[in-house]
Amino acid sequence: MTGDTDFRRELGQQLRVDSIRSSDAAGSGHPTSSMSAADLLAVLIDGHLKLDFGRPDDPRNDHLIFSKGHASPLYYSVLKAAGAISDDELLTFRKLGSRLEGHPTPILPWVDVATGSLGQGLPIGVGVALAARLERMPSRVWILCGDSEMAEGSIWEAVEHAGKQSLANLTAVIDVNRLGQTGETMHGWDLNSYGARAEAAGWTTIEIDGHDLQEIEDAYNAAEAGDRPTMIVARTKKGKGAKEVEDLPGKHGKPLADPAAAIAELGGERDLRVDVAKPEGDATPYTFEVPGGEMPTWEKGEKVATRKAYGEALAALGNRRGDIVALDGEVSNSTHAEDFKNAHPDRFVEMYIAEQQMVAAAVGFQVRRHYKPFASTFAAFLSRAYDFIRMAAISRADIALCGSHAGVSIGEDGPSQMALEDLASLRAVHGSTVLYPSDATSTAALVELMADAEGIVYMRTTRGATPVLYDAGEEFQVGGSKTVLDGDDVTIVGAGITLHEALAAAERLASEGISARVIDLYSVKPIDADALVRAAKETGAIVTVEDHWKEGGIGEAVLAALAEHGASAAVRVLAVEEMPGSATPTELLRAAEIDAEAIYAAATEIAQTKVES
Amino acid sequence: MTGDTDFRRELGQQLRVDSIRSSDAAGSGHPTSSMSAADLLAVLIDGHLKLDFGRPDDPRNDHLIFSKGHASPLYYSVLKAAGAISDDELLTFRKLGSRLEGHPTPILPWVDVATGSLGQGLPIGVGVALAARLERMPSRVWILCGDSEMAEGSIWEAVEHAGKQSLANLTAVIDVNRLGQTGETMHGWDLNSYGARAEAAGWTTIEIDGHDLQEIEDAYNAAEAGDRPTMIVARTKKGKGAKEVEDLPGKHGKPLADPAAAIAELGGERDLRVDVAKPEGDATPYTFEVPGGEMPTWEKGEKVATRKAYGEALAALGNRRGDIVALDGEVSNSTHAEDFKNAHPDRFVEMYIAEQQMVAAAVGFQVRRHYKPFASTFAAFLSRAYDFIRMAAISRADIALCGSHAGVSIGEDGPSQMALEDLASLRAVHGSTVLYPSDATSTAALVELMADAEGIVYMRTTRGATPVLYDAGEEFQVGGSKTVLDGDDVTIVGAGITLHEALAAAERLASEGISARVIDLYSVKPIDADALVRAAKETGAIVTVEDHWKEGGIGEAVLAALAEHGASAAVRVLAVEEMPGSATPTELLRAAEIDAEAIYAAATEIAQTKVES
Repeated sequence: MTGDTDFRRELGQQLRVDSIRSSDAAGSGHPTSSMSAADLLAVLIDGHLKLDFGRPDDPRNDHLIFSKGHASPLYYSVLKAAGAISDDELLTFRKLGSRLEGHPTPILPWVDVATGSLGQGLPIGVGVALAARLERMPSRVWILCGDSEMAEGSIWEAVEHAGKQSLANLTAVIDVNRLGQTGETMHGWDLNSYGARAEAAGWTTIEIDGHDLQEIEDAYNAAEAGDRPTMIVARTKKGKGAKEVEDLPGKHGKPLADPAAAIAELGGERDLRVDVAKPEGDATPYTFEVPGGEMPTWEKGEKVATRKAYGEALAALGNRRGDIVALDGEVSNSTHAEDFKNAHPDRFVEMYIAEQQMVAAAVGFQVRRHYKPFASTFAAFLSRAYDFIRMAAISRADIALCGSHAGVSIGEDGPSQMALEDLASLRAVHGSTVLYPSDATSTAALVELMADAEGIVYMRTTRGATPVLYDAGEEFQVGGSKTVLDGDDVTIVGAGITLHEALAAAERLASEGISARVIDLYSVKPIDADALVRAAKETGAIVTVEDHWKEGGIGEAVLAALAEHGASAAVRVLAVEEMPGSATPTELLRAAEIDAEAIYAAATEIAQTKVES
Repeated sequence: MTGDTDFRRELGQQLRVDSIRSSDAAGSGHPTSSMSAADLLAVLIDGHLKLDFGRPDDPRNDHLIFSKGHASPLYYSVLKAAGAISDDELLTFRKLGSRLEGHPTPILPWVDVATGSLGQGLPIGVGVALAARLERMPSRVWILCGDSEMAEGSIWEAVEHAGKQSLANLTAVIDVNRLGQTGETMHGWDLNSYGARAEAAGWTTIEIDGHDLQEIEDAYNAAEAGDRPTMIVARTKKGKGAKEVEDLPGKHGKPLADPAAAIAELGGERDLRVDVAKPEGDATPYTFEVPGGEMPTWEKGEKVATRKAYGEALAALGNRRGDIVALDGEVSNSTHAEDFKNAHPDRFVEMYIAEQQMVAAAVGFQVRRHYKPFASTFAAFLSRAYDFIRMAAISRADIALCGSHAGVSIGEDGPSQMALEDLASLRAVHGSTVLYPSDATSTAALVELMADAEGIVYMRTTRGATPVLYDAGEEFQVGGSKTVLDGDDVTIVGAGITLHEALAAAERLASEGISARVIDLYSVKPIDADALVRAAKETGAIVTVEDHWKEGGIGEAVLAALAEHGASAAVRVLAVEEMPGSATPTELLRAAEIDAEAIYAAATEIAQTKVES
């Protein structure tokens, strides 16, 4: 019977048995890390979690995120107990084509985000809790954390943010089973080592025996009644209930040697079903009223930094759409996200200097599908959150990221502030879109497209002001490019700051009788292969130029597009090759040989070579 | 007079004035973030810091790391006061060719590491302190942190590790000036919000008025006498001493509007010099005695995972060289760093699941140039530390990184554990080396080369066992490749797991009369352009195949090398294009179309196209 201690005890044993069974069928997996948390989950799903498994998209639902994603056998056993999957499907764990992957992914409709890279579930949960609160919905966010992952700094970013925001709708359950992959964790069973730090950050912390059903029940009741985020620090035993593995080192991440004996020890197989509580009431997510209005426009030739255009466009988009939210890493006056913040303070979240938490919160926001998050910081500092971006792609998350201050053209601040690897690293994210506008008009148009794009959409903006190239109303598309100048002797492909250098070079080339085609590659991924192949055929020589390291950026993207289409041309890649220092933007573009003069020289040489060959 | 309160007060004012002057000369910079910490530095350099500026490589020296790298005007003012640079050089701040970059870099001999990406100085300092302790040297590590950067999780990884390790030689001074870039920090002047958390992690924390010279003096004395790491949490005022900016928002990161007035307010220019204390005693760094021994060898055809070969080779190298240290992110039984740990427990540091701190500690170890750090985790999880790796390159750090479990070939664990972007992201690190061996023999040879390589050297290893291809004693080099099979109809370029698929494909091609050349591209960066250009010329058709996303990996590296040398060939890039799930390695290689069958098909097609054209 639901809520009954005997039932819960039996349910916990079933979750253990099923974790052992599925891992045994798979020949791999993490049964022992599942068994430690089985009682915590049994009590949670039998009386606390409010989730309609038949309607996973119901916005009133609670969220259950396994931050310790390797405890997937437990998660899938919970799904079976909740009647969401069959026992047959449970035993497809880790097999080709199964929805039950080694670590949970949103291929399963009840999984909000992919986990398995530790220390991500809690920070993402902070984002989900922020979204639910903004929606004025009763949804509670339950996060199961492992104790090993508490060593990740991202966990403590989350703890700090949840505390600062008083996220009473967030409960973290820490499964302190003491044993990591190779040995004991840093703190063993010292529950207070976790609790004291959370307490210092404004959480309520409750230390319990994670196998005592009443203590678990009391802790959940307290969490539900509390007005602050709650951390339940539970002392548990890894592999609890089976002598072969209980509380023993060396038993991480593998099936049991004698599953039959362990299952017998646990009382055999069961086939209990839990009526997981459904959310009550008829709340619907709050939608911000918006006044509408036009997107900003600029006069051709006007000098505007694309980062400024980003801010203005995002603020205007916020007037047109109530679903836009923005997050920034305490540099909103540099990224110009402050324009949005000033216009829509209720939909702006200050993430301070915690880029991992910022991206995680963006992922959390989109989990509930009611808001579209735009997150911004210096492009260089998105590298701090690279693992979160990687995992966001596995989560099939739709988020917009903006990185300002790209490349040597930022000038005096020096290399620590210069993104020179962002195009490469963001291109190498599954399904990503990489945009790099050269002027304000295209920036605004692309910001609008970002709001409806799928997957990880990244925009790189430029610090310095550049002239507006396009008339208001000009159309841009993901995967498109613009031939800014036509020509047939040589093609110059640039984007962002280098497009303006390319145009200056083309002017000088023209004065010497060399007709250069200039392509604005504002969509670096997907790339406009048609335009590039046509340019290769029609001009036979291409110079690419980028304010980025040579590896993985625009040059290689162009080469890959040409190779894929069997097009050949002489291609010269201009990119940053030496470590820059501090100087003016002009001096640094010159030193890196990605300015008009360098482009002119390369184009002249390559056009000449073409004539000779 | 040294140690005198009046002198220190005057010195603090000089540091402020000089910070204002250099920023004014540069037209940019962070004087206000410098002024808040001026008194903290005045007392530090006049009586506490032990650093012989004339002998920056003296291993007895203390270390002074500005984790808040944007306070570079203060750092450079300190250098001037210490007589290390002239006033003329001070005024070259942020100018082309100056050593005084916007944020400090090791172009200056007294700078240990580049900072400017916040939250890195303290974790690196943990590494420096660990190294100094291992060397049994008295060097103390002083870190100046800003309060804004305390929001970075990496800071708390460092706090936890320093506490766990009881690093009494580490002192963090937190300049709590309350104001970040855009507004107040999360905790304002709530000093205890920082102190309580550090205390919970085993630190001694001391809260002081950061402008009270006696309180500063007492705090430093306590830190020096303590047996735990000490966090001095100092309440300060941003822009202290100048009405135009003191404790005012909106004054971050720009020169003063009226520097003359501020300088007058601060008592005018001074030209004080401090005799910074030199280290005493004649301690020399402890060197581990080693027994010597051979590197491991394997029989051709024997099946050995390259991750296992990495562990064995590293352990053997540890027998031959006392300077090798290893760090691992709590997965040493997966990366096989455990072989080193078991053989050389004194030189192994368990970094738990804190990849940022792991890489930071590796950077810290190499600061002192006495040990060569090898840091390992799953290749996917190095993405967690990407910003640290990026900054390590700016630090001109020499570190070896090893990432195991690359690509879909890991099998059942699923995409969260599969590195599919590591080649792209690590290639896009300045001066990096990217190695990807296919067998045990080459792995061991490359591990030996890694120990003497400069810059960031990354090795990608494979989870599953693969046959040994090379005889013991075969030579390998950074930037080299091996033509494993000769042929003239088509070239197949693989590395790691795909090389074995390439060989299987070549066998099938041979049986059908197509002669395939197979190249082992074990050095992905630098790349063996000669061999690739030769292959392009001699076979006219190239298939590249990699267990990695299509962007930025082996395919694009090959295309870039060919383009750079003006070589043309039909190139077909095989790489992972769809999000993988969980299944066996064989099934996943097949599904991704990077197995022998896919290579065979692509090679047949491309060879055919070549014949037709």
